[in-house]
Amino acid sequence: LHRRQFAIIAGIMQTLFIVLFAKYVKYIDPLDDSRRVYSGTDYPLFQDVHLMIFVGFGFLMAFLKRYGFSAVSVNLLLSAFVIQFAMLLRGFLTVAFSETGLFSIGIPEMISAESSCAAVLITMGVLLGRLTPVQFLLLAFFETLLNVVVEHFVFNYLHVSVLSSKFPKIYREFQVNDSGRSLSVHTFGAYFGLAAAMVGHKKNVMEMDEHGGIHHSDLFSMIGTLLLWVFFPSFNAAIQEPEDARHRAIMNTYLAMASSTVTTFMVSSCVDTLGRFNMIHIQSSTLAGGVAIGKSSRVPTYSSNTYSGSAANAVLYPYHAVIVGVVAAILSVIGHAWISPRLEKSLHLFDTCGVHNLHGMPGILAGMLSIGFAYFYEPESYGKTLYHIYPYWIGGELNGDRENVSQAQYQAIGLLVILITAIIGGLLTGCILKIKIWNQVDDPDFPHGEMNYYAQSDVNFLSKYKHA
Amino acid sequence: LHRRQFAIIAGIMQTLFIVLFAKYVKYIDPLDDSRRVYSGTDYPLFQDVHLMIFVGFGFLMAFLKRYGFSAVSVNLLLSAFVIQFAMLLRGFLTVAFSETGLFSIGIPEMISAESSCAAVLITMGVLLGRLTPVQFLLLAFFETLLNVVVEHFVFNYLHVSVLSSKFPKIYREFQVNDSGRSLSVHTFGAYFGLAAAMVGHKKNVMEMDEHGGIHHSDLFSMIGTLLLWVFFPSFNAAIQEPEDARHRAIMNTYLAMASSTVTTFMVSSCVDTLGRFNMIHIQSSTLAGGVAIGKSSRVPTYSSNTYSGSAANAVLYPYHAVIVGVVAAILSVIGHAWISPRLEKSLHLFDTCGVHNLHGMPGILAGMLSIGFAYFYEPESYGKTLYHIYPYWIGGELNGDRENVSQAQYQAIGLLVILITAIIGGLLTGCILKIKIWNQVDDPDFPHGEMNYYAQSDVNFLSKYKHA
Amino acid sequence: LHRRQFAIIAGIMQTLFIVLFAKYVKYIDPLDDSRRVYSGTDYPLFQDVHLMIFVGFGFLMAFLKRYGFSAVSVNLLLSAFVIQFAMLLRGFLTVAFSETGLFSIGIPEMISAESSCAAVLITMGVLLGRLTPVQFLLLAFFETLLNVVVEHFVFNYLHVSVLSSKFPKIYREFQVNDSGRSLSVHTFGAYFGLAAAMVGHKKNVMEMDEHGGIHHSDLFSMIGTLLLWVFFPSFNAAIQEPEDARHRAIMNTYLAMASSTVTTFMVSSCVDTLGRFNMIHIQSSTLAGGVAIGKSSRVPTYSSNTYSGSAANAVLYPYHAVIVGVVAAILSVIGHAWISPRLEKSLHLFDTCGVHNLHGMPGILAGMLSIGFAYFYEPESYGKTLYHIYPYWIGGELNGDRENVSQAQYQAIGLLVILITAIIGGLLTGCILKIKIWNQVDDPDFPHGEMNYYAQSDVNFLSKYKHA
Repeated sequence: LHRRQFAIIAGIMQTLFIVLFAKYVKYIDPLDDSRRVYSGTDYPLFQDVHLMIFVGFGFLMAFLKRYGFSAVSVNLLLSAFVIQFAMLLRGFLTVAFSETGLFSIGIPEMISAESSCAAVLITMGVLLGRLTPVQFLLLAFFETLLNVVVEHFVFNYLHVSVLSSKFPKIYREFQVNDSGRSLSVHTFGAYFGLAAAMVGHKKNVMEMDEHGGIHHSDLFSMIGTLLLWVFFPSFNAAIQEPEDARHRAIMNTYLAMASSTVTTFMVSSCVDTLGRFNMIHIQSSTLAGGVAIGKSSRVPTYSSNTYSGSAANAVLYPYHAVIVGVVAAILSVIGHAWISPRLEKSLHLFDTCGVHNLHGMPGILAGMLSIGFAYFYEPESYGKTLYHIYPYWIGGELNGDRENVSQAQYQAIGLLVILITAIIGGLLTGCILKIKIWNQVDDPDFPHGEMNYYAQSDVNFLSKYKHA
Repeated sequence: LHRRQFAIIAGIMQTLFIVLFAKYVKYIDPLDDSRRVYSGTDYPLFQDVHLMIFVGFGFLMAFLKRYGFSAVSVNLLLSAFVIQFAMLLRGFLTVAFSETGLFSIGIPEMISAESSCAAVLITMGVLLGRLTPVQFLLLAFFETLLNVVVEHFVFNYLHVSVLSSKFPKIYREFQVNDSGRSLSVHTFGAYFGLAAAMVGHKKNVMEMDEHGGIHHSDLFSMIGTLLLWVFFPSFNAAIQEPEDARHRAIMNTYLAMASSTVTTFMVSSCVDTLGRFNMIHIQSSTLAGGVAIGKSSRVPTYSSNTYSGSAANAVLYPYHAVIVGVVAAILSVIGHAWISPRLEKSLHLFDTCGVHNLHGMPGILAGMLSIGFAYFYEPESYGKTLYHIYPYWIGGELNGDRENVSQAQYQAIGLLVILITAIIGGLLTGCILKIKIWNQVDDPDFPHGEMNYYAQSDVNFLSKYKHA
Repeated sequence: LHRRQFAIIAGIMQTLFIVLFAKYVKYIDPLDDSRRVYSGTDYPLFQDVHLMIFVGFGFLMAFLKRYGFSAVSVNLLLSAFVIQFAMLLRGFLTVAFSETGLFSIGIPEMISAESSCAAVLITMGVLLGRLTPVQFLLLAFFETLLNVVVEHFVFNYLHVSVLSSKFPKIYREFQVNDSGRSLSVHTFGAYFGLAAAMVGHKKNVMEMDEHGGIHHSDLFSMIGTLLLWVFFPSFNAAIQEPEDARHRAIMNTYLAMASSTVTTFMVSSCVDTLGRFNMIHIQSSTLAGGVAIGKSSRVPTYSSNTYSGSAANAVLYPYHAVIVGVVAAILSVIGHAWISPRLEKSLHLFDTCGVHNLHGMPGILAGMLSIGFAYFYEPESYGKTLYHIYPYWIGGELNGDRENVSQAQYQAIGLLVILITAIIGGLLTGCILKIKIWNQVDDPDFPHGEMNYYAQSDVNFLSKYKHA
């Protein structure tokens, strides 16, 4: 029965999904809602994000020789699982569902579902090589559940419950398409994973990997890095509107990526006594700019059923984006070079893919920046877009009462709520996964010769060549 | 002369193409026909399909260590050959050509040409490692010829010959852009290849491949799998219209892919006594949902010069798409695990890439589904789109007389015609390729040391390091 | 200090960029200029180009086993550097800057910046494995500087200085978005690199690479080849307008790619005594059609602040595109098989990636074609688009006085100016890089055992495993 654990749990989940889809989900009628159809605008952006999630994240984690295939396959499994689950969860939280008992899905819901995948995949990066597939599946289940609920809470109940009575039409029209989700993706995913890693699974997988020169695995990993690099502007812009916010999200991300790449090479060469580059830095820190700018360029708008600015801000000047990229890269390389080794030694906190340095710290930087920009930017400098960015700013049509200080406070509260829930959720999930009823990865210190790692724990990607 | 065979045949073909392009082809004038220009809609979809054909299919077949480079290169050669040939063939079948002696090409013709590539590449998957490049080129020639003609017959002469007199304007306007081609791609390609494999070439290439652990070749193969995975919604939606059909094609494919992936992992773990996953299943069966839904979400419309529903239907409810994905994945994994080994033993039918399990059976499933949906769906549930899906349904402006039963019969006839022609065509082509005048692959059982496989049959990808 | 050279120079550059971005650059306001916003049209094309530059070029150069990771990383570094630098340089040359001291950037500026990367990456292909990162950075600096200035001169001062007074509004509106840049990309990049290679660095890196069978590195290289293959139509069409020019650029490139691929296999098989294919030809010459058609399908228009036809022409008939592909492929394969070995022997000119055969000669072919088409095409056959292609043609609204002969002369002058500047610039840059103050690659003939190549010259991608 232990060997059938994965099949049973996956089977139950998939059956449940079928039932829920059958009872509660319908397609939006694109003839009724012109914003929801295939529109030359959203679908290409969706495809960029889709490619990033399924190919980019998978190959990014393929740098460990012994887990390359596992990384790519489990990435695929979890993503396919999460997109169904997240679509259902978000649907149950819509107004349409509470009113009619049905909700409808379209391209924007697909984009949202992919963001939920990103959070789970980031968490997976922390724990790669230390969980069995059945554990990963449970992890994805709990994390997605918590993530969607927290995100809903932050964007909807924290301070905008007036909305539904006030703008019922808009509310209903756009109730599912939401933006400002970046905070819940990078920061949540990273700290959830780190907290789960704290609880158990204290093994350093890296050291078990074979040493040697530059491997092909590093080139595979570069496929992932480059795909993320290339599509980060789309990722940050996919759920932005109106046009000027989307445009700014693209440009800010582009500039931050460029400056953070040059800075990564520079700092990586500095921290090495011989002035050489470290390939781990190149594979990861070059992306830090996109993570850090991600949140601060986010603009939650009408479409998100949320008038919160909690995770949102706008970088208005190109050089701010360039500077954010530089700072994020410095932070990330320093994290790889000095902070991670210290965490391993003092806290026994092992982070297989260095997620803390790519998503964790740059994510918090982004949160800080969103507080700072809200505080320091003159309201006038936003021009026409002020109320798109901060709908509750004083003088807007929502009768908001916020100005620099209060908006900055809201940003800070949002960041804290996300961080705290992620850590508590991660700790709890880590405990659940430690329960002995689940398949566990065997002690990797045990000499296992040519046997595949997964082979010892009932899972193997090589069933062509079975070991007895 | 034997050694120049490939160059001579390729040279003749390419010269012929130049002459035909010079005499009969012109570009459409985008200023005259607004639907044909670059339009933010069709070109991005074309690019998705283009990436899928040239990169996705090539790398999908790269999992055999000894044929990785061959797979990718021959994939490129055949595709480049077929897109020219298919564009010409389709053009000769247009009304515009029969009336004016000229036909024009644009983005939609490029999309159609890529579908023809897909059929040939699927066939190539069955025969990989067992044909020389010159044989592959001939195979592509015959298969494309037959495929385009059959497709034309099914969609135009089977029951819609009244059309041209009735709606001459529409007819002429859209005469080349056609949809509903999925049936002719997956099912045709798979059974054509299997029939050709029956005739000769009875060798098991797989066993000749080196055994061992997880190879980098499997990661290359995953690049192909994931690219197909990511772009399948675009592939199924590229030639759909109007907007609501395209939207539904995207959504249905997306859900079917997700559910078929989770199911593949589940069933793969079930069929293994130790509960492990089989990497072949992951590389292939995860895509089965897209194949099976492909056809049934197809909506041939005005634009296809065809009012046939022969290969078409529409999945109207999300949970139907989810279920189709589950069933297709089960079928496909069972095919890999039990049916393929039996076919090899009893019929000596070797299928290098397991095409029967990915394209063959799920393709037939799709055909069945299109019959079933036509039969069971209430006409009212289609809403406004009924006549887009079944233009000859009773009460439409084409004075059709079909209802559930008769439409289902037409669907069945279409499936049978495609299947029978594919098998006969494959058998004949297999016989032609066996003729001794063509370069043949030598007996691979002969010990060949470090010599490259292709080196023995006048073809080698390594001319830098020639063997005397 | 020698070991900190890279970090210091990169640091100075990036700081300079921040200062310049802060003082002179702002985002365009998409609400003011509808052509500049995210528009379902330009952004997807930008993404195609972006993927091509960052992933395609990087992996194309990954075929050398010892330099695979270097190729991909340095590609990323240089691109991230050049996009910032080129955006600034182009901005300083705009009318808006000279009038207001500020310039604005948007999606079209991002596309232009990526073209400048392409030129540098082509040059990098010539010198791969023979320069240290600090030398590559300097190379990128000088080449981009010269390239942007020459391009500006050719398109603006050669003969269109009347413009600004005549059409000030258009001038200002579109002053940055320019097209017709292909000439400055392929031809400039290739001959700049070859000239730089002439001066010093006379080592054959290829021979140092391990011999053997087909490597995985060749499959990585095919990823690059195929991505370039797939996105070449977008690359050639990205900055085209109006619609009919963009449409023709897509179609011409598509057909030229297809015919050049079939021809490459054919000719490659011909030049081998045993009729085998050479993988180098497949990795490179299959792309020659896109290079050669690139220029001749280019249409510089109003948007380019230029009414020059210097690098531009239009292929009007499909079969011309097919023929261009065939000729380019023949030229390119012959280059690989016969010209490159001779250049190495007689001039000691080593071209690591065979750039001369892919970008150099097909680029010159394209220049010739643009002369030829201007000379031979009847003006009437252009139809409505004549003045889009040759705005100064007699009878247009710019009071031009050109006809076939004079337009052809202008095309020729443009080609010569680009060629001469590239060669002189390359020679000078080569001399600068030889100065002993920069890190130099050590003598590779020296036996270096398992030491990494870069390790000897203060640079290493493996700092995880440091050599003392």
